Amino acid sequence: MFTAPAAPWRAVALLLLSLATARAATPVPPETVAAQLREAALAGHSVAYSWVSELSTRFGPRPAGSLNEERAAEWAAARLKALGFDNVHIERFPLTAWVRGGESAAIVGPVPQPLVIATLGESPPTPPDGLEGDVVIFPTLTALEAAPAGALLGKIAMVNLRMVRTQDGAGYSAAVEGRTEGPRVAAQRGAIAFMLRSVGTDGHRLAHTGTVRYADGRVPIPAFALSAPDADQLERLSALGQIPRVHLFSGASYRADAHSQNVIADVRGTRKPEEFVLLGAHLDSWDQGTGALDDGAGTAIIVGAAKLIRDLPHRPPRTVRVVLFGAEEVAQPVKPGGAFGGHAYADTHRTELEHHVLAGESDLGTDRVYAVELPPTQLHGDFAARLQRLLAPLGILPPSRSPEDAGTDVGPTIAGGVPAVTLDQDATHYFDLHHTPDDTLDKVDRAQLEQNVAAWAVLTWLAADSDVNFRADGAVPPPAD
Amino acid sequence: MFTAPAAPWRAVALLLLSLATARAATPVPPETVAAQLREAALAGHSVAYSWVSELSTRFGPRPAGSLNEERAAEWAAARLKALGFDNVHIERFPLTAWVRGGESAAIVGPVPQPLVIATLGESPPTPPDGLEGDVVIFPTLTALEAAPAGALLGKIAMVNLRMVRTQDGAGYSAAVEGRTEGPRVAAQRGAIAFMLRSVGTDGHRLAHTGTVRYADGRVPIPAFALSAPDADQLERLSALGQIPRVHLFSGASYRADAHSQNVIADVRGTRKPEEFVLLGAHLDSWDQGTGALDDGAGTAIIVGAAKLIRDLPHRPPRTVRVVLFGAEEVAQPVKPGGAFGGHAYADTHRTELEHHVLAGESDLGTDRVYAVELPPTQLHGDFAARLQRLLAPLGILPPSRSPEDAGTDVGPTIAGGVPAVTLDQDATHYFDLHHTPDDTLDKVDRAQLEQNVAAWAVLTWLAADSDVNFRADGAVPPPAD
Repeated sequence: MFTAPAAPWRAVALLLLSLATARAATPVPPETVAAQLREAALAGHSVAYSWVSELSTRFGPRPAGSLNEERAAEWAAARLKALGFDNVHIERFPLTAWVRGGESAAIVGPVPQPLVIATLGESPPTPPDGLEGDVVIFPTLTALEAAPAGALLGKIAMVNLRMVRTQDGAGYSAAVEGRTEGPRVAAQRGAIAFMLRSVGTDGHRLAHTGTVRYADGRVPIPAFALSAPDADQLERLSALGQIPRVHLFSGASYRADAHSQNVIADVRGTRKPEEFVLLGAHLDSWDQGTGALDDGAGTAIIVGAAKLIRDLPHRPPRTVRVVLFGAEEVAQPVKPGGAFGGHAYADTHRTELEHHVLAGESDLGTDRVYAVELPPTQLHGDFAARLQRLLAPLGILPPSRSPEDAGTDVGPTIAGGVPAVTLDQDATHYFDLHHTPDDTLDKVDRAQLEQNVAAWAVLTWLAADSDVNFRADGAVPPPAD
Repeated sequence: MFTAPAAPWRAVALLLLSLATARAATPVPPETVAAQLREAALAGHSVAYSWVSELSTRFGPRPAGSLNEERAAEWAAARLKALGFDNVHIERFPLTAWVRGGESAAIVGPVPQPLVIATLGESPPTPPDGLEGDVVIFPTLTALEAAPAGALLGKIAMVNLRMVRTQDGAGYSAAVEGRTEGPRVAAQRGAIAFMLRSVGTDGHRLAHTGTVRYADGRVPIPAFALSAPDADQLERLSALGQIPRVHLFSGASYRADAHSQNVIADVRGTRKPEEFVLLGAHLDSWDQGTGALDDGAGTAIIVGAAKLIRDLPHRPPRTVRVVLFGAEEVAQPVKPGGAFGGHAYADTHRTELEHHVLAGESDLGTDRVYAVELPPTQLHGDFAARLQRLLAPLGILPPSRSPEDAGTDVGPTIAGGVPAVTLDQDATHYFDLHHTPDDTLDKVDRAQLEQNVAAWAVLTWLAADSDVNFRADGAVPPPAD
């Protein structure tokens, strides 16, 4: 079956039909409602685009623990109340914020040349006058690991791995370890600083930032991402027989008394309001762009989908909960001085987790959804079949696997036993922009954004309207206290 | 007629055939030689790619009057000697150099956000602590001109014109006046600083720099280009009813005792060495990128073409002169404290100009040549027909007009009475990169670079091998002294 995206008039007609049907008190089949939600989203009737436009314009970058992040959360809560969501509130949590300072890099010899870099998140500052060293280039993290202890004394270690462009983001997973682990490995071998070719797929003079993993409670040395052309330049200089000597400066700092916050908003269920279908996305962003894609788009997609459900004549039995998480970008297993939004939510709502029937998040920009992953118990059967009938017109493949990693924000919730769902987005182009200054509103593809809203609206409605138990043990959740 | 680009082995075979023919002392028809040059270029046998790679890698940015520009000139002269050019020398001239200092811009209210800007060339610094003002946005320079005197007192004036993407660069010509004239017009109306949407066609967070025209011997106020997404952001904030307040800082300075230089290299003609076919390109670049496209590519194209001619068994009767100009980017009709390379060449070689039979330059990156423009006397006739037969396999349209503007470098030479030729390059994508940090080697399209070399080699050979008089008056140049 293939249904072409509806023209706006058709979606409006369908919505009016839906309202008329509701007035006549004749129950509308769930699949019909889901199709109406899908068509309304495709016709541009969700709030998604205006949400991401206003969020990214008013507040720009929203780094974890910043004033901009907090103001964006206050704006989001006010907007969600105005949109008619229930139980809208902000849950604050403490955080040690990392703050990018001034930063610069340059080849100082043999001929001076500026370099485009971005300090990696959580990494310590250089001395006030910067630091200087010869660059030693390794093709991979593995090659860096093979260098003996002390081999890099006084040097700047550089990993030059080229990330592979893939639909499913596998290229990112393979490359990102260089960023998270590189500084520790380089420091162990005596390096005074670490640089890596940006974990990204573009060729612009824009560096991709991102966090570094703590080791023994800290990032041991200043760490930087180079734009791809700058990494190429250093590689070519070396190939010409020159050893590039580089000066690096970072004025990064930490703020121990900072805080971040999660924003909660519900579409309260009619018959089983204590059962939650949780949709997550994060409100913080990296500080170089305006976080339109990462993750303004994700917040827009789930708010857009939930708002379409909120406005139905009959709301579903289960509660749809939207969580706009804080401080996702600095999330890591062990971080001193603070948690992050995903942990804070799971901790605060620990006792309710057994009533969370399903959780998923949107955090891969606006590119189209091409596949769905369901919990093992529901990979086959009626729910999967019904879902597939409704998602097929969006070009989404039938469910064929279960989520291994449903995302950073919902990770702790899922670790708490909540079944996970993922809508897989095409990642082919996402890592051209990810964590760069180029993450801005003009990169949002409105038609694809609406395809995402349509997919989430369908999935969320079907899950919230059903009695399906997604848990691996097949146990029906006990009644809430 | 269409000849597919030759495989390398075929070009080599042709060159060997040419050598064998030469040894047999049988004259090779000029069109056959031109076709051999073309095929050798297409097969990658020119030095063009290695030239632009090494130039842009070793010296990076080469701003007018800088150490990098001077070292690049010394390298170029040494390399041209090694390649077997004649009369290789450097001609130095004085210059007041403009030096970009630190620079920054940010929205300071209502919510702080960083902005990506580039200080415009030649513009004065801000006070040491920067300056701050409300932004007044004008859609065009004309709209700014319509503001009454004093209307912008204490304000920052911004022109937000969107450049149109065109094949022939007409979009740039239409938009660039906003950059060159905007600061003067804004200052006359009381503005404390000037910003404009970058004159460019991309959507990246990279600002396009470029010069500002002097008025009464100076640029009156600090002037900046914004990246397109930043201009959009300011426009959207205004549309939300907010007046963006912006802080600007530039530590730009001037160095009055600087110098630049032109590099000259000849392929000395056999029978009429005093007659010159001049090929120009500029060795300086803007300071944000490495000038691989602007104009490393141009220098590579003309050196590549001239070197293929240099290596022929029989050199042409007329001299082929390569001029690598200095300080092109800061060229303007009236600039205090210095000249630029184009003027310096025309002044130094004033008495030889009457023996320059033709002049042209390459300065639009590496995109393919699609048309040729010839002096009016030669638009029709044998030379044009022969040229067209040889250029048609490169996809180049027949000559249909004469150059109005053959380029900045050769401008003063042409103003001195020398006939102009242009090979028109496709400018559709050039202004995505022009004057940005993104002007780096990875943007050089090697196949298109070689198409350019092929076209210049054919044109140059035909002009240097002929007795054609390109002058408007039809006068044959008198014998040299």
